[in-house]
Amino acid sequence: MLLLTDALIAPINRGNAVEYSWIATIAVADGQIAFVGNPDDIPATFAEASRHSLAGRLVTPGLIDCHTHLVYAGSRAREFELRQQGATYETIMRAGGGIFSTVAATRAASAEELLAGALKRIDRLIAEGVTTVEIKSGYGLDRDTELRMLRVARDIEQHRAIRVSTTFLGAHAFPKEIGADAYLEETCLPTLKKAAAEGLVDAVDGFCENVGFSATQMARVFDVARELGLPVKLHAEQLSDQGGAALAARYGALSADHLEYVGDDGIAAMAASDMVAVLLPGAFYMLKETQLPPVEKLRAAGVPMALATDGNPGSAPMSSILLAMNMGAVLFGLTPEECLRGVTEHAAQALGLSDRGTIAVGMRADLAIWDVTDPAELSYRIGDAPLYQRVFEGRLC
Amino acid sequence: MLLLTDALIAPINRGNAVEYSWIATIAVADGQIAFVGNPDDIPATFAEASRHSLAGRLVTPGLIDCHTHLVYAGSRAREFELRQQGATYETIMRAGGGIFSTVAATRAASAEELLAGALKRIDRLIAEGVTTVEIKSGYGLDRDTELRMLRVARDIEQHRAIRVSTTFLGAHAFPKEIGADAYLEETCLPTLKKAAAEGLVDAVDGFCENVGFSATQMARVFDVARELGLPVKLHAEQLSDQGGAALAARYGALSADHLEYVGDDGIAAMAASDMVAVLLPGAFYMLKETQLPPVEKLRAAGVPMALATDGNPGSAPMSSILLAMNMGAVLFGLTPEECLRGVTEHAAQALGLSDRGTIAVGMRADLAIWDVTDPAELSYRIGDAPLYQRVFEGRLC
Ligand SMILES: [Zn+2]
Ligand SMILES: [Zn+2]
Repeated sequence: MLLLTDALIAPINRGNAVEYSWIATIAVADGQIAFVGNPDDIPATFAEASRHSLAGRLVTPGLIDCHTHLVYAGSRAREFELRQQGATYETIMRAGGGIFSTVAATRAASAEELLAGALKRIDRLIAEGVTTVEIKSGYGLDRDTELRMLRVARDIEQHRAIRVSTTFLGAHAFPKEIGADAYLEETCLPTLKKAAAEGLVDAVDGFCENVGFSATQMARVFDVARELGLPVKLHAEQLSDQGGAALAARYGALSADHLEYVGDDGIAAMAASDMVAVLLPGAFYMLKETQLPPVEKLRAAGVPMALATDGNPGSAPMSSILLAMNMGAVLFGLTPEECLRGVTEHAAQALGLSDRGTIAVGMRADLAIWDVTDPAELSYRIGDAPLYQRVFEGRLC
Repeated sequence: MLLLTDALIAPINRGNAVEYSWIATIAVADGQIAFVGNPDDIPATFAEASRHSLAGRLVTPGLIDCHTHLVYAGSRAREFELRQQGATYETIMRAGGGIFSTVAATRAASAEELLAGALKRIDRLIAEGVTTVEIKSGYGLDRDTELRMLRVARDIEQHRAIRVSTTFLGAHAFPKEIGADAYLEETCLPTLKKAAAEGLVDAVDGFCENVGFSATQMARVFDVARELGLPVKLHAEQLSDQGGAALAARYGALSADHLEYVGDDGIAAMAASDMVAVLLPGAFYMLKETQLPPVEKLRAAGVPMALATDGNPGSAPMSSILLAMNMGAVLFGLTPEECLRGVTEHAAQALGLSDRGTIAVGMRADLAIWDVTDPAELSYRIGDAPLYQRVFEGRLC
C-alpha cells in the first residue's frame, strides 16, 4: 500500500474549465489506484499505510509512448553525416544507407544484440517516466527476423519495469526485387499468422504511402488481421494523401499515425469511428517537413490526438517522449494540456488499453512523479529531465 | 596520472581529409594532457600509470556551452501555456509574462535560491559532458541583482566540477519607465564598473536590437569595457540587422551571437577580426523563426561557428547541449563535424579560452567519453544521453 499526499494531479477532466490539475491524495493497493481525493476522505483501510508527501509535486499517469520502432540494429549516423555534407540520395543509397541498411543490420543481429540495443533506448524512456511502450517489428521483412524482433520486444518486460505493446509491421517496406504483392503474399501475411499464433502480436500496422503499400494492399493485410481478431492501425498520410486514414477507419482501427496530409474526408472518417490521431513531430522535424498535420481540424472534429517519439534509426533517432511533447507544442501548436493527454490518456486509447492513461480508481497504478509544480513545465522545457520518481504497478521504482 | 587507451578521438585537424577522428591513447598528468598518440610512443613516465581501455569509445574535449542565461528565478511555463492556448501578446503581458517577469522573480530571489535553480540546470549540462559553461547576468537590471547573479555564477565552481565563464549582460533590457540611455548611465555602466572591480566579469555583452539597445548605445557600453580591459561580445542580428556584428568587430569582440539577419558587411567584418559566430538554434526553434543564419556564407568566409544552448527561461528553456548540436545540424544545416567543433574548439574561442576545446598536449584535461563509436552519433541522435564518463581537470568524474 502506498499513499501519495499533496500531489498535483494532472491531467484531470473538469468539463471546459481552464484548470486541468488539482492537489489531492492518491492511494495505491494491489497495483491499482484505490483512491483519489481529499486527505479527509482516505479509506480507513489506508490508516496504517506509510504516507509520502509530494509537497505539491506534479503526478501524471505513467507516460505511454504509443509509436516506436525501437528494436533494431545498426546506426544511420554515418548516413546522416553524408546527408549533412550535401550527399545526394543516390550517393547515400550507394553507400548502403536507407531503411535497407537497418534491415540488413537487424537481420544479422542476434536476439541478445537486439535486446541490448533496445534496452538502452528503453532506459531513456523509463528515465522520463514512461511505463508503457509500443514497439513495432518491420526491419526484418523476412519471417525469422520479424519474429525475432517481436520476441525481443516481448522479452523487454522480463528485464525492465515497463509494459510493452507489440505491433506487427511486416508491411513496413518490401524488397524491390520481390515486389509488394509477392512480398505480402509469400512472406508478410504468413509471418503475421505465425506471429499471431505465438501470441506475439497486439496489433497490426502498415506503411501506406506511394513509396510503401497502397490502400488496396493494406486492405489485404487488414483482412488477415480481422480474421486473426487483431486490432489494426496505420502509418497514414505522412508524405501524401493515400486515403489511409479512411481505410483504417473502415477496419475500426485504433489509430492513424503521422497524418500531415490527411484530408477532410479522412478526418471525418476518423472522428466517426473513434480513432486516435497519433502525431509524430520528431519525424516531421528530422525530415524537415513543412506540411503540418491539420491540428485545428482534428481538434474541431473531436479526434483525440496522441504524441509519440516514433523512435527509429532513420527519420526519428529520438528517445525522448518529453521532447515529443515539446515538439508537439512548438512545431504542431498543441497546448501543454493536449501534449500531456497525448502521452497519457490518448496514447492509451491508441493502444486500446483502457486500464491506464488516467489517474482514477481501478486504473493500473502506473504513475510519474515530477520535480515540477505546473503540468505545463513538461512541454515547455527543452531537453530537461525533471522526473522525480516513477510508480510501476504500485511500486516506487 | 591517467592513461586512456583505444580512444576514438575527435575532432582532430587533418587538413582537408574527410576523417576527423582517429584511434589513439591519451595520457593525462597534473590536470593537463601530457600525450596523445600511438600506444607504442607513450612516455616512459607513464609506464606505471593504470590504463583504462575505452574499447574504441569516442573521446571529445569536454563540451563547452558558450552562451547561457542559466542563473535566474521563476518559470515562464505558464506564459508558454497561455501562448499555446492562443493568448495575444497583450494578454500575456497583462498576465505578468515576458522578460520582466523573470526580472521580478530574479530580483526577489536570494543567492541561495538562484544557486539551487542554477545547479539543477548545470547538472543537466554535466550529464552531457559539459566541463565549461558561460553564464550571463541580465535579469537584474539593477545593481544588487546583477552583482548577485554574477556572484552566484562564480559560486557554481565551488559546488560542481565545472568551469564558469561570467558575462556581464546589464544591457539585456531596460525598464521602460527609465529609458535606455538613463538606464545605461545611471545603472548599467556603474554596475559594470563595480562588478569588474570585484573580479566578477570575464566579458561584456549586450542585446543590440530595435527592441533592445542601439549600436550607438552598445558602443558606450563597449567603451567602458575597453577601459576596464574586458573583452566584449554581442547578441546581434537576431531579429533584424542593426549592424551589431560590425560594431562588435570594431571592438575586437570575441563573438557575435544569433546572427539570423547578419548581412554580408557584418560577415566580412567578423571574418576580418577573427570573431566567432555563435549560433543558437534553440531560440530559433522555440520562437518559430523562419530566417536562417547565413551558414553557407559564414562557412565560405571562414568564420568559425559555435553552437550553444542559450539556456534561458523565455526563448530557449533548454538544458541540452547535445540537442543544440542536433538542431544545429537539422535546422541550420551544419555537418556533424561542424556541430562538434561548435561545442568544443570554436566555443572555447568564443570565450577567449585557448587552454581548452581541443585534445592536444598542454591543454586542460577536460574530456568527455561517450558510449558511441562514431562522432556523428552526437548530433544525429535526438534527446539521447550517451555520455559514458567525464574527465574534469584530469580526474574521472
Ligand atoms: Zn513509425
Ligand atoms: Zn542570449
